[in-house]
Amino acid sequence: MTTQATKITIVTERLIQSEVTRIIEDAGASGYTVVEGSGKGQHGLRSSVRPQMVGAFSIVKIETLVADRGVADTIAERVIANCFQQFSGIVYLSTVEILRPERF
Amino acid sequence: MTTQATKITIVTERLIQSEVTRIIEDAGASGYTVVEGSGKGQHGLRSSVRPQMVGAFSIVKIETLVADRGVADTIAERVIANCFQQFSGIVYLSTVEILRPERF
Amino acid sequence: MTTQATKITIVTERLIQSEVTRIIEDAGASGYTVVEGSGKGQHGLRSSVRPQMVGAFSIVKIETLVADRGVADTIAERVIANCFQQFSGIVYLSTVEILRPERF
Repeated sequence: MTTQATKITIVTERLIQSEVTRIIEDAGASGYTVVEGSGKGQHGLRSSVRPQMVGAFSIVKIETLVADRGVADTIAERVIANCFQQFSGIVYLSTVEILRPERF
Repeated sequence: MTTQATKITIVTERLIQSEVTRIIEDAGASGYTVVEGSGKGQHGLRSSVRPQMVGAFSIVKIETLVADRGVADTIAERVIANCFQQFSGIVYLSTVEILRPERF
Repeated sequence: MTTQATKITIVTERLIQSEVTRIIEDAGASGYTVVEGSGKGQHGLRSSVRPQMVGAFSIVKIETLVADRGVADTIAERVIANCFQQFSGIVYLSTVEILRPERF
């Protein structure tokens, strides 16, 4: 009764939250969630253009689920190409099982 | 040294947090966590009974781990049946590896 | 174009956040994120030394990604050995796909 889907998680600086969510919406995902937190490390989370951001700092964790793996790959690639040249962040994918697949 | 378990994630409106956590506890899960955030989209996250909630709005992300897959399915089905007719939200399952399985 | 990695999630009392993140950094992970929330239950989340903590209480959810599974196991084992004798918490592992593996 469940269907496989792909969850895309983007952890990045709050400053580019709206740029990331625009990429998500443009790619055709039907929604997303944002949780605020803090982060530390080079984990892609230290900005080369703002070297003062080496310690712990504020992050947003943005998640979206898509039924179509191609859409997931598109979102991941666009976030890296458009956001992570100038800003720090990581993106990763995981497989989840959804119910009511018509909603995704 | 790890054991497979199922993580159930429910993203929904804050208004029904206690209803969701009661379903989790009634099904026999041994605990849960709640994180607050914001969300947007039709992703099941727009309430049909409150059409003004179309933009970004507050959500809670509720997670629980259960060792028994049947319990996970029960929680997912009850949340959809009891909460998501009137309120918007999504539920998804993922496989994780736990340590100390006697605690779940 | 993606590479498998292991995500380690630790949900525990805020009091030992810095102890957990030190274990993560000592094991060689390149970063971590922390989100605050609330939790309830015996889920490993009730402290035996502080039995008053039976209801809902504040938690932190700490996550890190590592490309090397052995590092993930080390972090999980050290957190249990060093933190969860005295404090309550859970640790679980999941498989994710990362991009730009050189950053992990």
